[in-house]
Amino acid sequence: MRTTVGIIGGGPAGLLLARLLHLAGIECMVLESRTREYVEHRQRAGMLEQGTVDALRACGAAGRLDAEGLVHQGIELRFAGERHHLDFPVLTGGRTVTIYAQTEIVKDLVALQLAEGPPLLFEAEALAVEQPESGAPVVRFRHEGREQTLTCDWIAGCDGFHGIARGAFPAETSRTYAHDYPYSWLGILADVAPSCEELIYARGERGFALHSMRSPAVSRLYLQVPNGTDPQDWPDERIWDELAARFAIDADWTLARGPITAKSVTPMRSHVHEPMRHGRLLLAGDAAHIVPPTGAKGLNLAVSDVSLLARALTDVHRTGSTQLIDRYSELCLSRVWQATRFSYDMTRMLHAQPNGDAFESRVQLARLRRITASRHAAAELAANYTGLPLPV
Amino acid sequence: MRTTVGIIGGGPAGLLLARLLHLAGIECMVLESRTREYVEHRQRAGMLEQGTVDALRACGAAGRLDAEGLVHQGIELRFAGERHHLDFPVLTGGRTVTIYAQTEIVKDLVALQLAEGPPLLFEAEALAVEQPESGAPVVRFRHEGREQTLTCDWIAGCDGFHGIARGAFPAETSRTYAHDYPYSWLGILADVAPSCEELIYARGERGFALHSMRSPAVSRLYLQVPNGTDPQDWPDERIWDELAARFAIDADWTLARGPITAKSVTPMRSHVHEPMRHGRLLLAGDAAHIVPPTGAKGLNLAVSDVSLLARALTDVHRTGSTQLIDRYSELCLSRVWQATRFSYDMTRMLHAQPNGDAFESRVQLARLRRITASRHAAAELAANYTGLPLPV
Repeated sequence: MRTTVGIIGGGPAGLLLARLLHLAGIECMVLESRTREYVEHRQRAGMLEQGTVDALRACGAAGRLDAEGLVHQGIELRFAGERHHLDFPVLTGGRTVTIYAQTEIVKDLVALQLAEGPPLLFEAEALAVEQPESGAPVVRFRHEGREQTLTCDWIAGCDGFHGIARGAFPAETSRTYAHDYPYSWLGILADVAPSCEELIYARGERGFALHSMRSPAVSRLYLQVPNGTDPQDWPDERIWDELAARFAIDADWTLARGPITAKSVTPMRSHVHEPMRHGRLLLAGDAAHIVPPTGAKGLNLAVSDVSLLARALTDVHRTGSTQLIDRYSELCLSRVWQATRFSYDMTRMLHAQPNGDAFESRVQLARLRRITASRHAAAELAANYTGLPLPV
Repeated sequence: MRTTVGIIGGGPAGLLLARLLHLAGIECMVLESRTREYVEHRQRAGMLEQGTVDALRACGAAGRLDAEGLVHQGIELRFAGERHHLDFPVLTGGRTVTIYAQTEIVKDLVALQLAEGPPLLFEAEALAVEQPESGAPVVRFRHEGREQTLTCDWIAGCDGFHGIARGAFPAETSRTYAHDYPYSWLGILADVAPSCEELIYARGERGFALHSMRSPAVSRLYLQVPNGTDPQDWPDERIWDELAARFAIDADWTLARGPITAKSVTPMRSHVHEPMRHGRLLLAGDAAHIVPPTGAKGLNLAVSDVSLLARALTDVHRTGSTQLIDRYSELCLSRVWQATRFSYDMTRMLHAQPNGDAFESRVQLARLRRITASRHAAAELAANYTGLPLPV
């Protein structure tokens, strides 16, 4: 088989890239190792930056997002028995974020692609990227029981942190930057209306907690837990009790409880692979970088990566100029490192110190107090949270 | 002997407090363990926040400061082969900082106090604070070969990090928050005109360097060195070579060298003692808190502490109300923790990682790039650097 851009991975990065290339008239094909059912139901992020919403709208994939997405004007910070609202439109000159689950974005993009093209193969497992330095790199993959090859002009590795694309980068010209955090998140989905209109980030000596939502009927909540925590050790009642304790603020506020429909523990990790291009192989999204979920940058970075990538590939296609594609890695990474910095800082500001470092704990409080006291500090948080602009 | 406010320590904190109380008509006495010669020549800080200059001016102690101090409109950040100027007046609405050595402030305040009062005893070594909970606390001290007592209404512990005042706080109601940094500063004074008009903070893989000055003829420079460094291992030539390498930016810029007149190694430490009041004993300045020198907050915190303390004691004296003095510790500490946070962040942003943590190193670069790209991030640094307002 042959195509112009072979896309490994049918998550939001790969699907959005396919959509953007399709609209630009560039032939491409998506290879997804899992079933449609699987990719449409894996729980991931749900907070979209303004720029992510804009990108989905611009490619005609935001019909349901615009109808069902919950536009949030800010977030609430809870600490030291206080609650503080950050008003994003006021702080950023009108920017907001939107709650709309990644699963729903994937469903919307899959439906669009199956209806309009380009080709999207499920259960097509990429095995290797070959000759990325050549003018005709190849993806070797297994589909319908046999090995096949897809010869491309360009290959986009959108196959996530555990994907195979990154492995085709030579070790001698690649470098990985990583940080592991000394805590994890226990996340739940619950069939209960959210107890708040906007996200609550709660910092306290018991540990961090986040109140989020997927829809007006489904709450998404997280608890900081030690690394290695077994979800089995957290019966539903214990989870609700701990959440209630961490969000406790005053008699007027109570946490609504409901049936828990999903429960999982996620470790926290920062990971950046440099560069993001090798020859004609280009990485986008989790294949190149991972952030901890605090600040919800993962999905949004994937969208900004593929926006830059689609722009660069379109430019090559239309003008023959490699100017943009030659800067792809550098441009992506400048934004990736800003999001990495922001996620790291948000994470470290909000989580209890497992080693009991009392100095660090007081510095956390000073950071939070500064954000609530200084317009510049609050505006800086809001600018990062609602999303920095695409590099040019 | 008897006085209204007994002040332990004749550094800038104790001397300024005495000046402020004197002007408010409150009797006080300063006990300084060292000689006048010694306190007037110990090398310390030299960067004054706007509010510190204002406080010295308001008490008539800024004659020479106004004539000789160097007003700086900003600082320069150097990293990754780039130089970036932060313009404080533009970023803060007109605020600046002033270079004027602590030794000179001490000389000015000593001269004023010896001329106009209140009493200032040199070589008067405080031995203990007794009965701080009572209405008449006592400082026991040694002067002119014999032990004496000073009975007071209030005692101000302005005797620095190694002083005795803090020891009079009961352990069960006190708490210390501390952080030690994995590097030190090798600082020099050199008889050479500064190579720059403003301070240069240089971050690089070789380690941090700071170019500062004491006057138009005296440069003050610092190098990040490993903890435990012996200044003897750093002959003058090696220091200049290393400084030149760390500040290297382009062919147009050279570091002027000259005779080195002082050389010392200072460890980096954050330390906060809570509370700052016990009964009628009140701490101010280094006696209560230490910050690493990055950001130059130590002297400025001492000045804000004693400004709050003088205001509170004046209020007690004039109206009998203890409202302000009862809030002294809380008000000071809110500002102390902001300066502690800022010093910690500046320190961590600029120093090379002795453990070689490449992730942290990239996050540092992302922070610096953000400060040079975002008006809010730059303004937040400038606001902290030029000094946050006194709490009310």
